[in-house]
Amino acid sequence: MQRRKVLGLAGAGAAGVAAVGAGALALNHRDQPDPQLAASETDAEAAGAIPFYGAKQAGIVTPAQDRLHFCAFDVITDDKAALVDMLQDWTAAAARMTQGRDAGTFGAVGGSLEAPPDDTGEALGLPASGLTLTIGFGPTLFRTEQGKDRFGIAAKRPAALADLPKFPRDTLEAAISGGDIGVQACAHDPQVAVHAIRNLARIGMGKVTVRWSQLGFGRTSSTSRTQATPRNLFGFKDGTRNLKAEDAALLDEHLWVQPGDGPDWMTGGSYLVTRKIRMLVETWDRSPLAEQQAIIGRNKGEGAPLTGKLELDEPDFAAQDGEGQPVIAMDSHLRLAHPDQNGGARLLRRGYNFVDGSDGLGRLNAGLFFMAYQRNPHKQFVPVQNSLAKQDALNEYIRHVSSGLFACPPGLPAADDYWGRALFA
Amino acid sequence: MQRRKVLGLAGAGAAGVAAVGAGALALNHRDQPDPQLAASETDAEAAGAIPFYGAKQAGIVTPAQDRLHFCAFDVITDDKAALVDMLQDWTAAAARMTQGRDAGTFGAVGGSLEAPPDDTGEALGLPASGLTLTIGFGPTLFRTEQGKDRFGIAAKRPAALADLPKFPRDTLEAAISGGDIGVQACAHDPQVAVHAIRNLARIGMGKVTVRWSQLGFGRTSSTSRTQATPRNLFGFKDGTRNLKAEDAALLDEHLWVQPGDGPDWMTGGSYLVTRKIRMLVETWDRSPLAEQQAIIGRNKGEGAPLTGKLELDEPDFAAQDGEGQPVIAMDSHLRLAHPDQNGGARLLRRGYNFVDGSDGLGRLNAGLFFMAYQRNPHKQFVPVQNSLAKQDALNEYIRHVSSGLFACPPGLPAADDYWGRALFA
Repeated sequence: MQRRKVLGLAGAGAAGVAAVGAGALALNHRDQPDPQLAASETDAEAAGAIPFYGAKQAGIVTPAQDRLHFCAFDVITDDKAALVDMLQDWTAAAARMTQGRDAGTFGAVGGSLEAPPDDTGEALGLPASGLTLTIGFGPTLFRTEQGKDRFGIAAKRPAALADLPKFPRDTLEAAISGGDIGVQACAHDPQVAVHAIRNLARIGMGKVTVRWSQLGFGRTSSTSRTQATPRNLFGFKDGTRNLKAEDAALLDEHLWVQPGDGPDWMTGGSYLVTRKIRMLVETWDRSPLAEQQAIIGRNKGEGAPLTGKLELDEPDFAAQDGEGQPVIAMDSHLRLAHPDQNGGARLLRRGYNFVDGSDGLGRLNAGLFFMAYQRNPHKQFVPVQNSLAKQDALNEYIRHVSSGLFACPPGLPAADDYWGRALFA
Repeated sequence: MQRRKVLGLAGAGAAGVAAVGAGALALNHRDQPDPQLAASETDAEAAGAIPFYGAKQAGIVTPAQDRLHFCAFDVITDDKAALVDMLQDWTAAAARMTQGRDAGTFGAVGGSLEAPPDDTGEALGLPASGLTLTIGFGPTLFRTEQGKDRFGIAAKRPAALADLPKFPRDTLEAAISGGDIGVQACAHDPQVAVHAIRNLARIGMGKVTVRWSQLGFGRTSSTSRTQATPRNLFGFKDGTRNLKAEDAALLDEHLWVQPGDGPDWMTGGSYLVTRKIRMLVETWDRSPLAEQQAIIGRNKGEGAPLTGKLELDEPDFAAQDGEGQPVIAMDSHLRLAHPDQNGGARLLRRGYNFVDGSDGLGRLNAGLFFMAYQRNPHKQFVPVQNSLAKQDALNEYIRHVSSGLFACPPGLPAADDYWGRALFA
C-alpha cells in the first residue's frame, strides 16, 4: 500500500507505449503484493505511519516530528459547495498521504498519459515518515476583512477565535500573517512534508491560493516525555515546561476545547497561534554567556533554572543573590513566561527553527516559527504575550514578523467524514 | 571529543556561581571520559564524522548528504592579514565542527561567563551528522566589480574563474548572486549544517557579511553508486547520469583541476557553479503525464529514457516513433543536457530542492538549488547551459534567479594548513 511499491511497475508507463486504462493499472499498483518489498514495507508502515483518523487531530500531541512545512491558504471562491468539495478532496488525500500513499487514486505514474497525474511524484519511494496533516480555520474564513460572510458560517465563529490584539513591539507583515485555512505538515523527512502541502495546493487550485508558507528545519519543542528537549537558535533548550502528551488532565484543562466552551463543532479541538519570530542571532552571539543566561533565566548547557541544577528543577523566583537581587531576573524570559506569573496559563508549544536565507543586511534571516496549541488563546497566549511583549529582556533580540490564529476542529472519527463537516453541514 | 559530552557538566555553569577559569573547564569537558556516553559516542563518531583533512575537499564526491545550507559571503575588509586570520580561524572551526565538536576551544558553555561563547550552542548534543564544509573563492575576491585588487591576488585568478556569460532567459537577482567566498555546508541534520554556517558568520564578524544563503531540504543528486537517484520537485529522478565518486578516471577528466590547467593553487580543486532555479510547479502540475515525460525525455516512474525500460538504459536519440518523429524530442531536457550533445561535457551535480515560503502571488516559491562541480565551467557548464537556455522545453516551467561561481581549492593535507594558504601566501 505504500508509494515504494509503485516503482517496480513504473517502467511500464514509458511514453511511446499507448496510454493504459488507468483503473487497471491502479489496481495493479495497489493490490498485487510485491514479495521483495512486502516485509520492509510492513515494517516501515508500522514504524512510520501515524493514524489519520481519531478523536483528536494528529499533529498536536503527536511527538513533535523533526521537520515542518506550514501553509496558510486564502480561499478565493465564494462558492460554499466548491469549498466543501475541496475539503472532501483534501481529506481523502490527507488520509492517503499520511499513510505513505500517493495523494490520489492513480498516483504520480498510474493514471492516463493524457491527464495530469493526481500526485506530483517527488515522494515516490519515500515512506510515510511520520507525516501528520493538521487543519485549522482562520477568523477570515468566517467573515472576510471586508465583513462578508461568504459561506454562511459567521454565526459559528467561536468567541475564542476573535482576532488577536496588537501587542507592544509587534512588527507584523500582513502578507505573511493570517489566512483563511492553515495546514500544518510535520514529518521526519522534509520532502514528505513539502510534498503533502504542495499536493493540497494542487488539489485546491482555483479554490485556494498559498497566502504564505513556512519551512522549519528543526523542532524546538517536545510534546512527549519520550523526547529530549531540543534547542532553539539562541542555543538554549526550549519548551522545558511544555505540555506533554502524557499529561491527560492538564491537556483537558489547557489544550482541548471542552463541552460548553463554545460552538459544538470545536469541542475536542484546539486553537493554534503561529508567530514567526525573527531572532537577531548576530547580536545575541556577541552577548556574554552570563548575560544570555540572565535573559533566559536558565543556564545554557543543562537548561536548569538559575536557582537549580537540573533542567526539570522548579525555579525559585524568590531566591536572591548576595546583593539582594533576584537570581532569576524580574525581566527574564523564564519568569515572565512561567504559568505562576500568568494565572496558571499553559500552552502546548510545537515550534520550529527556521532560516530563510539572508536579510539583505548581511545577516541570516533566522528565527523561531512559534506554534502553540491551546484551549482558548485569549486566556492563554494573549496574557502571556502581553506580559512578554512589555517586559521580556529577550525583546532586544527578537522581532515578531508574522501572526496567525486558527481553530483546529477535533479529529475525524470515520473514513467517510471530512475536514470541516461539522462546521459547514 | 563530541559535543554530547559537554552536557553532563553544563549544569556547573549555572549563573550565580562565579565565572570559572575557562581553560580548566574546557579541559574537563574534553578530556575526562564519560563512561556512560563513551560507547555510543565512539559509534557516532565512527558512523557520522567525515574526515576534514585530505587531498581533496570533502563535500564534493562525498556521498551527497540529505540537507544543505549554502552561504555566499561578502568580504568587507581590505586588510589581507585580517582576511587570512579569519580563514585560519574558519579552518580551525571547520575542522572541529565536521568532527562533531564545538566551533571553538571552550564551546558554548565552557568559557568565561563574562565573554560571548565561542560556539552558539544549538548543536549541543548532536553528532557530526556527516557534516562537510567546502570553501570556494568567487571572482570578486580577486578583483572587485569596481576593478580593485584588494588583496594582491588578481594575477592568481584562474582563467576558468572568468565571469559566467549572461545566458538567454536569465532573470538573475544581483542580491542573491555572486559572492566573494562561498561555503557549502552539507549534513544529514539541517540543524548541524545551519549551526556550521552561523558559526563561520559569527567568527567572521567585521570581516565578512552574509550576502545570501540558501537552505536545501532534499538532495536531488547522487554522487556515489551506493545512493539511489532522488527526485526533484517535478517528480522526476534527477542526476541519473551524474559523475560518481567511483568513476576515478572520469573525475580526473571532468571534475578535478589537473596540473597545467591554470595556477598551481587550484590543482586538485574544482569549480562550483550554483544556480537557483525557481520551478513553476503549479503550472507543471497541470501538464499531462505524457507532456511531462516528453519534456524531460524520461518516464516519471522508473526514470528510464523514453527509448528504454530501465533508468540506466542508454538513450537512443535516433529512435523514431510510428510517425517518424524522434521518440526523445529534439527539445527534451535529456537530449539537450546529454554529454553526446555537448562535446562530452559532464558535471558532478550536487543540487538540493528548496521551498522558500510563497511568492506573494499565491504560489509556493519552490525549485532546485543547482550546484555542479567541474574542471572548467567555461568548457562544461557554459556550453550545456547555453544549449538548454536556448532550446529546452523545460524553460517554460523554470526561471534562473541566482548564479554563483567559486574556485574551490584542493583539500588541506595537514592540520597546520588553512583554507586559502596557497592563494594568499
